[in-house]
Amino acid sequence: MTTRKAVLVLNGPNLNLLGRREPAVYGAHTLDHVRGLCMDTCAQHGFDLDFRQSNHEGVLIDALHEAGVAQAEGRLAGVVLNAGAHTHTSLALRDAIAGARVRTIELHITNVHAREDFRHHSWIAPVAEGVIAGFGIRGYALAIAALAA
Amino acid sequence: MTTRKAVLVLNGPNLNLLGRREPAVYGAHTLDHVRGLCMDTCAQHGFDLDFRQSNHEGVLIDALHEAGVAQAEGRLAGVVLNAGAHTHTSLALRDAIAGARVRTIELHITNVHAREDFRHHSWIAPVAEGVIAGFGIRGYALAIAALAA
Amino acid sequence: MTTRKAVLVLNGPNLNLLGRREPAVYGAHTLDHVRGLCMDTCAQHGFDLDFRQSNHEGVLIDALHEAGVAQAEGRLAGVVLNAGAHTHTSLALRDAIAGARVRTIELHITNVHAREDFRHHSWIAPVAEGVIAGFGIRGYALAIAALAA
Amino acid sequence: MTTRKAVLVLNGPNLNLLGRREPAVYGAHTLDHVRGLCMDTCAQHGFDLDFRQSNHEGVLIDALHEAGVAQAEGRLAGVVLNAGAHTHTSLALRDAIAGARVRTIELHITNVHAREDFRHHSWIAPVAEGVIAGFGIRGYALAIAALAA
Amino acid sequence: MTTRKAVLVLNGPNLNLLGRREPAVYGAHTLDHVRGLCMDTCAQHGFDLDFRQSNHEGVLIDALHEAGVAQAEGRLAGVVLNAGAHTHTSLALRDAIAGARVRTIELHITNVHAREDFRHHSWIAPVAEGVIAGFGIRGYALAIAALAA
Amino acid sequence: MTTRKAVLVLNGPNLNLLGRREPAVYGAHTLDHVRGLCMDTCAQHGFDLDFRQSNHEGVLIDALHEAGVAQAEGRLAGVVLNAGAHTHTSLALRDAIAGARVRTIELHITNVHAREDFRHHSWIAPVAEGVIAGFGIRGYALAIAALAA
Amino acid sequence: MTTRKAVLVLNGPNLNLLGRREPAVYGAHTLDHVRGLCMDTCAQHGFDLDFRQSNHEGVLIDALHEAGVAQAEGRLAGVVLNAGAHTHTSLALRDAIAGARVRTIELHITNVHAREDFRHHSWIAPVAEGVIAGFGIRGYALAIAALAA
Amino acid sequence: MTTRKAVLVLNGPNLNLLGRREPAVYGAHTLDHVRGLCMDTCAQHGFDLDFRQSNHEGVLIDALHEAGVAQAEGRLAGVVLNAGAHTHTSLALRDAIAGARVRTIELHITNVHAREDFRHHSWIAPVAEGVIAGFGIRGYALAIAALAA
Amino acid sequence: MTTRKAVLVLNGPNLNLLGRREPAVYGAHTLDHVRGLCMDTCAQHGFDLDFRQSNHEGVLIDALHEAGVAQAEGRLAGVVLNAGAHTHTSLALRDAIAGARVRTIELHITNVHAREDFRHHSWIAPVAEGVIAGFGIRGYALAIAALAA
Amino acid sequence: MTTRKAVLVLNGPNLNLLGRREPAVYGAHTLDHVRGLCMDTCAQHGFDLDFRQSNHEGVLIDALHEAGVAQAEGRLAGVVLNAGAHTHTSLALRDAIAGARVRTIELHITNVHAREDFRHHSWIAPVAEGVIAGFGIRGYALAIAALAA
Amino acid sequence: MTTRKAVLVLNGPNLNLLGRREPAVYGAHTLDHVRGLCMDTCAQHGFDLDFRQSNHEGVLIDALHEAGVAQAEGRLAGVVLNAGAHTHTSLALRDAIAGARVRTIELHITNVHAREDFRHHSWIAPVAEGVIAGFGIRGYALAIAALAA
Amino acid sequence: MTTRKAVLVLNGPNLNLLGRREPAVYGAHTLDHVRGLCMDTCAQHGFDLDFRQSNHEGVLIDALHEAGVAQAEGRLAGVVLNAGAHTHTSLALRDAIAGARVRTIELHITNVHAREDFRHHSWIAPVAEGVIAGFGIRGYALAIAALAA
Repeated sequence: MTTRKAVLVLNGPNLNLLGRREPAVYGAHTLDHVRGLCMDTCAQHGFDLDFRQSNHEGVLIDALHEAGVAQAEGRLAGVVLNAGAHTHTSLALRDAIAGARVRTIELHITNVHAREDFRHHSWIAPVAEGVIAGFGIRGYALAIAALAA
Repeated sequence: MTTRKAVLVLNGPNLNLLGRREPAVYGAHTLDHVRGLCMDTCAQHGFDLDFRQSNHEGVLIDALHEAGVAQAEGRLAGVVLNAGAHTHTSLALRDAIAGARVRTIELHITNVHAREDFRHHSWIAPVAEGVIAGFGIRGYALAIAALAA
Repeated sequence: MTTRKAVLVLNGPNLNLLGRREPAVYGAHTLDHVRGLCMDTCAQHGFDLDFRQSNHEGVLIDALHEAGVAQAEGRLAGVVLNAGAHTHTSLALRDAIAGARVRTIELHITNVHAREDFRHHSWIAPVAEGVIAGFGIRGYALAIAALAA
Repeated sequence: MTTRKAVLVLNGPNLNLLGRREPAVYGAHTLDHVRGLCMDTCAQHGFDLDFRQSNHEGVLIDALHEAGVAQAEGRLAGVVLNAGAHTHTSLALRDAIAGARVRTIELHITNVHAREDFRHHSWIAPVAEGVIAGFGIRGYALAIAALAA
Repeated sequence: MTTRKAVLVLNGPNLNLLGRREPAVYGAHTLDHVRGLCMDTCAQHGFDLDFRQSNHEGVLIDALHEAGVAQAEGRLAGVVLNAGAHTHTSLALRDAIAGARVRTIELHITNVHAREDFRHHSWIAPVAEGVIAGFGIRGYALAIAALAA
Repeated sequence: MTTRKAVLVLNGPNLNLLGRREPAVYGAHTLDHVRGLCMDTCAQHGFDLDFRQSNHEGVLIDALHEAGVAQAEGRLAGVVLNAGAHTHTSLALRDAIAGARVRTIELHITNVHAREDFRHHSWIAPVAEGVIAGFGIRGYALAIAALAA
Repeated sequence: MTTRKAVLVLNGPNLNLLGRREPAVYGAHTLDHVRGLCMDTCAQHGFDLDFRQSNHEGVLIDALHEAGVAQAEGRLAGVVLNAGAHTHTSLALRDAIAGARVRTIELHITNVHAREDFRHHSWIAPVAEGVIAGFGIRGYALAIAALAA
Repeated sequence: MTTRKAVLVLNGPNLNLLGRREPAVYGAHTLDHVRGLCMDTCAQHGFDLDFRQSNHEGVLIDALHEAGVAQAEGRLAGVVLNAGAHTHTSLALRDAIAGARVRTIELHITNVHAREDFRHHSWIAPVAEGVIAGFGIRGYALAIAALAA
Repeated sequence: MTTRKAVLVLNGPNLNLLGRREPAVYGAHTLDHVRGLCMDTCAQHGFDLDFRQSNHEGVLIDALHEAGVAQAEGRLAGVVLNAGAHTHTSLALRDAIAGARVRTIELHITNVHAREDFRHHSWIAPVAEGVIAGFGIRGYALAIAALAA
Repeated sequence: MTTRKAVLVLNGPNLNLLGRREPAVYGAHTLDHVRGLCMDTCAQHGFDLDFRQSNHEGVLIDALHEAGVAQAEGRLAGVVLNAGAHTHTSLALRDAIAGARVRTIELHITNVHAREDFRHHSWIAPVAEGVIAGFGIRGYALAIAALAA
Repeated sequence: MTTRKAVLVLNGPNLNLLGRREPAVYGAHTLDHVRGLCMDTCAQHGFDLDFRQSNHEGVLIDALHEAGVAQAEGRLAGVVLNAGAHTHTSLALRDAIAGARVRTIELHITNVHAREDFRHHSWIAPVAEGVIAGFGIRGYALAIAALAA
Repeated sequence: MTTRKAVLVLNGPNLNLLGRREPAVYGAHTLDHVRGLCMDTCAQHGFDLDFRQSNHEGVLIDALHEAGVAQAEGRLAGVVLNAGAHTHTSLALRDAIAGARVRTIELHITNVHAREDFRHHSWIAPVAEGVIAGFGIRGYALAIAALAA
């Protein structure tokens, strides 16, 4: 009997503010809406969902390490990572992905390239499998679909 | 009776080499495979497909202008644009998208952020709806799905 | 009997969208309005008008070469060049002007210096006779007047 | 009966070393002196004081989110934030302030502009109401006075 | 009875040297020639002329403030400003134009873009209505014509 | 009998436009309001007020030199300097403060860090005692309070 | 019977102006002289000559793709590419060479390193076999000789 | 009786992955091997060992503060700090070392200068006593030896 | 009878503070000492002395223009210019020297290259005959000697 | 009787390692092979060969000076200079070529543009007649042929 | 019988001044002390010592080449290289190490990262095995120990 | 009896070409003329002259070290150093001056600030007593006079 694999959807700093944070930029949906959407999409693709958010870089690193182990043991399909502002500043997250050898999709709700210059550079993208940005919370569904392929 | 809308999948310079061009980087699929994949995905979402490739910047601009008209007339859902190297150098393509007010998704087969530095900057992304990169030719299917949402 | 000289008004990429393209930025006049205005101004100064637009860089270069010959033969007073986005990216246009030794006035409808940073630099200006920017479509009339002087 | 509002004075990394850390630069006062000074100033302006310090970025972000809620509910007048070195590196703190929509005053004990170059740039200042720097621990009193205005 | 409006032609540092200063670059005409040309052009467009030159930045700022008042009172059509070297260094002149809300045309006798790099950047252009450069002293006539439009 | 000390509030270019200049940015108060506010605050702290404004850099430098003498003679508590655009361009003002050894507080009405990039750098801050920015005209009161401490 | 191989000599924008374009820089020889010289040199080395010029980037890309096929089929020895101004701006040409896997020698008539800074960088050189620059039209002969080795 | 001093070996983010993380880069030894090696080396030099690892910046800062106290009380010889990716991004760690006045040796397993550009700059090195990099896990022994000197 | 020529020694902003301004940097001599030294040196070389100081850029420009006329009329040997901070910021002074075609020696009391980075660049040096820096007030004597040669 | 001219082939630092130094990059041929190839090529063109190598910059400069004299006396056709790493760092070599007015061809065995960024810039190229790079040791033959033309 | 291997300790420019050169920075020990320390450390590890110093870059390159041969023949364990200022400027030394394939440890007496910016970059480090900096002359002993491992 | 002190006039690379090297830039005088001029000037000031030139950086460093000893022993008044191109590239020369603690005047025949950008920066100036540039060979006399003061 094969194990049903999980998808880790990992959200970084300030994503708990979703729906409250600059709705003109991020939309009116809350992180609970995102969780629901991810739950549905995972169900469609036969995945379990592991959905987390933290404002602490260290917690995100620990989660990526854990995911690396789970993936090596065949329990995880991959990670959808919305690292928020850490995308642009955290070299440690980059090393965590590369070091844990965990398949990771970088996800942004907004089109970061249409915003401030400092949001155009990602430390994570070079070690991610791919990047999806600008499709609002629907991007999470696209990313899970990408992991299913 | 409602018109069935089309999707314009527009490929820029050197994408005709697909399958022949650096297979280690771009994979073994040819542009005909891509066309087939797009055909199938469009069919699933009730879209017609308009699939083009050109090595001429001017031809791409003309096509985007035409698409702007088609979209304004309700005949086009949007554009999936893989502008190849023009992504990084063509300000005229950017102005064409903004000027024609055509909904555009920037698509890359490879993870451009994991390649040379000069492929990290996109003139097009700031005027696109979103960006999808790094998922091989499957990215075209994700982009069409994004237009369907 | 002296030949009546022509003025070549040469418009680059996306200027065919005029009136449709971001009216808040470029105004409501179409390229046909510009042609009419140029016609009138040329008439006032005893010039014929050669009015063109292309989204293809190569077509613009060919036109400048042709203009260089016409000017050398006394059939052309000079060129009013609105190179659009190519102003900021096309070194080949610059070399065409210098190489064809054709008197050229760089023209912009908008005040490019009040817009994005990447519109502040012009490859063409150093080889042009002068620059006129920010006066809307009236700038074409000022440029033709400058050629008449 | 109106609620008496609080002021959150939030201190970032290494400020617990105050008095011990490079006294020639930061002065001889400890963080307890700062707390006392803030207590007195808050009392003068009819504020309660919520005084915290953490070396953990995530803890600071959580506190700012909490402050945003308190302010929205009328329980908080605003935040005086001395983010220490995070001023210059933490984009996540910036997003926390903007996302939580909390009125924030950036405060520095030293004149950061008279120190190393890397202390001249602040990620936080653009989303703060204002900046006060260089007045030693008296700056905290000035900042609380500014919130009272 | 409508007031006849004036045009302020304001010349910055070293323009009093015109005709004497690097004739190969600036031509043989003196500032008195320029005044005469402006007088004639103003007459053609029904403007009075207010023609000034100063090597003192403060005097130029004061004049722009005064012009802002005159324009608000309907006595001034606008300013033709040849700020000379201050174009490239004076942020205060920029703020004067924006602060006084006075319609201003930036004018250069030479094609500044064909000269040293440090003459390519203008602090003034972003707050000017438009820019005219490279047409010798005839540029003053073009600028007055532009104000008349 | 001890002399009552004065505070020199020194305003640079364009601050005479206050109330008229971009009210959305600078607020509706005029420089006379500022003078009144400074008068009141000085009175509270037992200071005389010396309030000046000039659009001439040289006049500001002369005033700072004079202030240095006054401070050395015990007649001046210090300077509140709002140097306007000169903050970002005048090295001579910086040298004047350092050379005259006069205690100076850099003051900005707006939060310069939330505005254009070129307003983020201050030549003056490194030689000032401290910086206060973003609190509107109330900032003058905070600065005088800081001098009183 | 072995096929006699061809050499493609491909000239980019403005090289049709040769002899007319800035003779002090490029010399008095026309493109026809270059063709004759290439013909002779090819004859010496047993090559056929395919000599082309275009001002259209897309045409150059198409030719390089075609050359890639010819080389793979043993009909082409390689390409001598004088890309003119596109050398410094066209990433698409670079990708065409790499993608078509065609042996290419970058050729410049002038010593580009002794000219303007923007002519010092080549997008093409890193994917070329080698570079020859500064030997006037004789450089074409050297490049063909290099292909013969 | 003199107290035996301890050495704090402090490891930052992702060093818990050692042996699993990119073995081609970091070698096959795990962090437990490192601990063993440090234990042995400390024993040789008469030191106790305090060996820690954390992925949380705040935990590392707290540990450095604690070490500063221990050193001031004569219980600690110094710190061997392998800050991992935080070396290149954490100004707060730098301030912790300087503020806690704790003798610190910066240690890297790999030769960071032979890797990506962003690993060439260290925020920590300027406040460290010295730097040892590129000797694999043996570097820990060299660093402890350096503290013993 | 030949006219005895003058030397204009022109001192810019803050040089009136000499002797009072940062004596550790600039030495204990006042500007009066400098005047005396220049008087003596001029006498030795048969020059009259015209010695001035101003904190106003415009006054310095006016003086250079006047000097240009005097030199053209054979009444002036040249200018020794210590432009103070304007050396590093005033493009208008540079244009004044070039425009007035006046022989100018740039003089600095201190070795500007051993001070802050922003004092290493001079706008004036490229249009000066030469530069003398770092010899204290004796540099004035060397500069006058250089004019005598 | 005309003198037979020599060619000076001058090799800089580390070229004595040829064949031993990174053969994957530089090929298997030694400097003796290069000498042989140069001997043969010189013979073909009627040149004598003067072949040298030194790791000392000063020796190379002296040789270039000597070559300048020889050329002026008609004994030397020119120099083929492979300056190795000095190409990218030695301004003194550049000045030697320009100062000795000796005809020089810059030669590189490898395609320096396809290697590290710091090998893309040449101090020497702007004063050389031309550049040949990327053709292995055959490049020496091409360079000698170029001198013969 | 196995050969006893040597260690080459190679010192670059100005290290002969040790003890005399800025003792506050480099300490009071002379190069003879360093030689003695190296002698002792080599003895401990069973190495012979080859200790040299030169102010001539070429001599250092020659020595590294020689060392490469010695190492290939089993007579040398490696090189401890204190290249002094050449660390930051000599690309030729870097190529010598890489070309001679000699095991090299970069050594600095001072903590170069705590000094001027231009001492932070090393051309040598990327081709060295490792780097040791900041431990005074004891660093030589650590480096020899590292070679022994 | 007091020893008569010497002045070391030290000339760097390519200065032996003086008179032959680009006379339009450097003038027609040879290095022998310079020696003669220095001899005379030294005689006037009671100095012996030690006049040297070398194209070898190491020889210049050795000479500076020697000069440091001579100065410490009261046999040398100081050094006039014309380091030629090494001015802009040799950090080792800078360290030699600082390390040998020898009083040094940086001398340039030409006005380096009026030449190419790369001649504007000097590594030596910050450790020199002062700089004299642009006065032709007369600058040597000024420099010796400066040493005499």
